[in-house]
Amino acid sequence: MSEGTDTFTDPAWLDLSHRLQPSRRERLLEVSAKRTEHIRLVVQDIHHPHNISACLRSAEAFGILHTDVVTMKESFKPSTVARGVHHWLKIHRYDQPASCAQRLKKAGYILAGAYPSQDSTPLEELPVDRPIAVVFGNEHDGVHDSWLPHLDYNFTIPMVGFVESLNISVSCAVTLYELTRRAKQALGDTYYLSGEARNALLGEWVRQQFSWYS
Amino acid sequence: MSEGTDTFTDPAWLDLSHRLQPSRRERLLEVSAKRTEHIRLVVQDIHHPHNISACLRSAEAFGILHTDVVTMKESFKPSTVARGVHHWLKIHRYDQPASCAQRLKKAGYILAGAYPSQDSTPLEELPVDRPIAVVFGNEHDGVHDSWLPHLDYNFTIPMVGFVESLNISVSCAVTLYELTRRAKQALGDTYYLSGEARNALLGEWVRQQFSWYS
Repeated sequence: MSEGTDTFTDPAWLDLSHRLQPSRRERLLEVSAKRTEHIRLVVQDIHHPHNISACLRSAEAFGILHTDVVTMKESFKPSTVARGVHHWLKIHRYDQPASCAQRLKKAGYILAGAYPSQDSTPLEELPVDRPIAVVFGNEHDGVHDSWLPHLDYNFTIPMVGFVESLNISVSCAVTLYELTRRAKQALGDTYYLSGEARNALLGEWVRQQFSWYS
Repeated sequence: MSEGTDTFTDPAWLDLSHRLQPSRRERLLEVSAKRTEHIRLVVQDIHHPHNISACLRSAEAFGILHTDVVTMKESFKPSTVARGVHHWLKIHRYDQPASCAQRLKKAGYILAGAYPSQDSTPLEELPVDRPIAVVFGNEHDGVHDSWLPHLDYNFTIPMVGFVESLNISVSCAVTLYELTRRAKQALGDTYYLSGEARNALLGEWVRQQFSWYS
């Protein structure tokens, strides 16, 4: 299905999309064509709103659809996310890593935690042939230990300088850049949403657009 | 030359390196083995100290040796760079893009400006077979127009969402990650410093270590 071809039959889309500005309508079609469920971002207890905001911005910019926000001790207010980027992501909330991990495993994801250690897998070697969710933890404490029994991989971004860690927003962006780049190459069209999922998403987006104006 | 083999003859290195803690000495050898002059970072008028700090941290972490700082209107105080990371980079200062560009061209670099436009080259397609310097501009105004006659490429990080720009620290990290990754693959050992350059660098680093303690 090409980006511009509109054969979508979601009732809300059929009903409302022609009332959008043509350029806006085109943009929804275009962006939905590049969304993926294959890579997924999980953030746990990110403290600074500007950091979570930057992580969600990178996810959105690189075409991620689902983001999982786990808050064991930190709060998360979507309203603090810069420029309303959270409206274009599906954000799932949990108060424990276990409930998030169970849901993702059930949905077929492998879980990789940003957890630097001697035996961590370099980012370049994380597999992308199956759906994968990457987990980033708190700025100071990192990924919480209660993730450990659920993680298929610990991974790290290879660094070769004296600097031994990168800012979380930088780590998150580099990770999503690398995984989306490779997964796209490896999977071709199956990397992107199915026609059915894209249809449903367009329905949600167009309803959301009109709810803002009503 | 393997990372650990120490056949370096720089006078300061010969004289001083055995007075370092063995683990410190090993670390200087190890990091110097992964330094490159093939990729170079240029920043022009970055306003926020935390942004320039993040850019320099990423450069250092990814093994970049040279960073060029052009300040037409903004000031730059190395002392504001977090955790003294600037000590491990060679920082070159200019007050005009032209003087920086001329120096880099003379040294054989191609210049690529982070300058989103219709005809920008996607990051993935920037060539890495020749030395390349990437130019990032001010957070609000971007790369200054006076760079334009000097740039061999405008480039952009491909984004597929509603978000149309990334934070400069994120853009810089993703760019350096991608270019160093590909250049390493393409060039093998010639990507890294020559034995001669590494020898001189170790001499500088060991002198610097002792100047801190004297």
